[in-house]
Amino acid sequence: MVGRKLAERLARDGSLGGEPISHLALADVVEPKQTMPAAFDVDTVVADVAEAGVARELLSGRPDIVFHLAAVLSGEAEADLEQGYRVNLDGTRLLLDGIRTAGGGYAPRVVFASSIAVFGTPLPDVIGDDQALTPRTSYGTQKAIGELLLTDYTRRGILDGIGIRLPTICVRPGQPNRAASGFFSSIIREPLNGQEAVLPVPDDVRHWHASPRAAVGFLLHAATLDGEALGDRRCLTMPGISVTVAEQIAALRRVAGEDPVRLIRREPDETVMRIIASWPRSFDARHARSLGFAAEASFDEIIHAHIEDELRGRIPLEKA
Amino acid sequence: MVGRKLAERLARDGSLGGEPISHLALADVVEPKQTMPAAFDVDTVVADVAEAGVARELLSGRPDIVFHLAAVLSGEAEADLEQGYRVNLDGTRLLLDGIRTAGGGYAPRVVFASSIAVFGTPLPDVIGDDQALTPRTSYGTQKAIGELLLTDYTRRGILDGIGIRLPTICVRPGQPNRAASGFFSSIIREPLNGQEAVLPVPDDVRHWHASPRAAVGFLLHAATLDGEALGDRRCLTMPGISVTVAEQIAALRRVAGEDPVRLIRREPDETVMRIIASWPRSFDARHARSLGFAAEASFDEIIHAHIEDELRGRIPLEKA
Repeated sequence: MVGRKLAERLARDGSLGGEPISHLALADVVEPKQTMPAAFDVDTVVADVAEAGVARELLSGRPDIVFHLAAVLSGEAEADLEQGYRVNLDGTRLLLDGIRTAGGGYAPRVVFASSIAVFGTPLPDVIGDDQALTPRTSYGTQKAIGELLLTDYTRRGILDGIGIRLPTICVRPGQPNRAASGFFSSIIREPLNGQEAVLPVPDDVRHWHASPRAAVGFLLHAATLDGEALGDRRCLTMPGISVTVAEQIAALRRVAGEDPVRLIRREPDETVMRIIASWPRSFDARHARSLGFAAEASFDEIIHAHIEDELRGRIPLEKA
Repeated sequence: MVGRKLAERLARDGSLGGEPISHLALADVVEPKQTMPAAFDVDTVVADVAEAGVARELLSGRPDIVFHLAAVLSGEAEADLEQGYRVNLDGTRLLLDGIRTAGGGYAPRVVFASSIAVFGTPLPDVIGDDQALTPRTSYGTQKAIGELLLTDYTRRGILDGIGIRLPTICVRPGQPNRAASGFFSSIIREPLNGQEAVLPVPDDVRHWHASPRAAVGFLLHAATLDGEALGDRRCLTMPGISVTVAEQIAALRRVAGEDPVRLIRREPDETVMRIIASWPRSFDARHARSLGFAAEASFDEIIHAHIEDELRGRIPLEKA
């Protein structure tokens, strides 16, 4: 989803960091869709970077910037250990080794999408930039390993890597999914469409969010940031906003009135509550902010971004 | 070296955690030596765990306890990126996956030798148990990845892992080597044998040490410790003592008099100084100590351990 939005944004902008884009290659395990017309060549490739030799081929055009977003997500990585390690660890390593063995001094900027799942309990209420990585899922473990590899390969001059730990993306467009985090988006997205949404946790649950638009902004900023400014620390927690579910709902009320709020049905789910309890609640993303990474300043802004980007600026269920 | 000393200790003790040892298999890429007679069967195997299928075979006897000490060391891992990742990352993963696929509920205790090289600058003067892992070498990166894998596989019930971050081992027996850390041992070992030793750094350089005997003690304690007591944190910084080079030399004087001290020749080496400057100087290894891991209380004790274990209790160059 973030990859698609990134491609759309690149097509719209036509440039990156003030330089015109000459070529974009989109690779995915399913046929990638490039829905926006672009002023530059766009190739779409069906490829699995976790297969030997594929990375080398994908890199044959020697792109200046590589966005590495490919991943088996949290739920699947937990359910299928082999597949998670194959894609999230081997895939990342094969990509980095593809760069290492490309020769001719090729050392592109690599933007690696990491995740706040690299952090696990026990956690302070507000997590600083020096927090140790103690993942409590296989997905978080694989992302933490990716960060270590990226940092080591950068230190050795093989590439110029930046890893960005994305907040939970909210409001995620599309259909409700079964991810434990799904309700954070559902309770905004469905009511704005006049549909009921289930809230499985208490209103005082706090979490860390940024919009899909902000996530794309992080990726673009990471693509063009001066690597020297990062020093040795190549992986950063991205900014976001920390809100409770109650604050999410209050923002929905301010933006769209009482009607959508009435469509949120409270249906406590012990399993979801237990999973969520171990998640980070808030960060002090000082280092990233000082480097110019910017997210929304309020959850109202996140809802407005969703309405603008996904609902063409209109709230289907209009404020009464 | 630590592996050999561990095997000798097991042979001498004949038991581990109060249980008699029935069988010991020693695997190494070169023919392992078992010099001590043992009351149990000892197999020696020449094997490279980083080769596919080897781990499975090594584990065919389903040992209750697996000590994983195999590693390409710091200097070689830095000089040969592929070899370092192959042995230190792939080897570890193949071993863990060999256990995962062994079937029949096999989930042994795995003791993984990690290293304080998982820590890199910037570092506080005293490093606590919550310090983030920010390795500045490929060796440290590979050890940090090993810790993450061990922790994840333990969380998933595949094995019962404990990772121990060993201090710099001092006094290391044998010949002087070219490792940047070699002088910490050299300035004790050579003078005690009536030979000159070169000190390439100023006397105020501080570092973190434990004896080979203490390192073997850590491994044995880790082998039999109740895993539940560790909680989610499966990798621990081992205790040690933090001393300056001046304090090392003062201890040598107390133990063996002025003659050996006179054999230490100061020959500053900018390269060694620069490498050492980024190394940890001291730890508060509170968690490990609370779990019963114990090291020497003074550098005098470390020298005495060397004299007892390597010099048959006699100082060749006797105190005047």
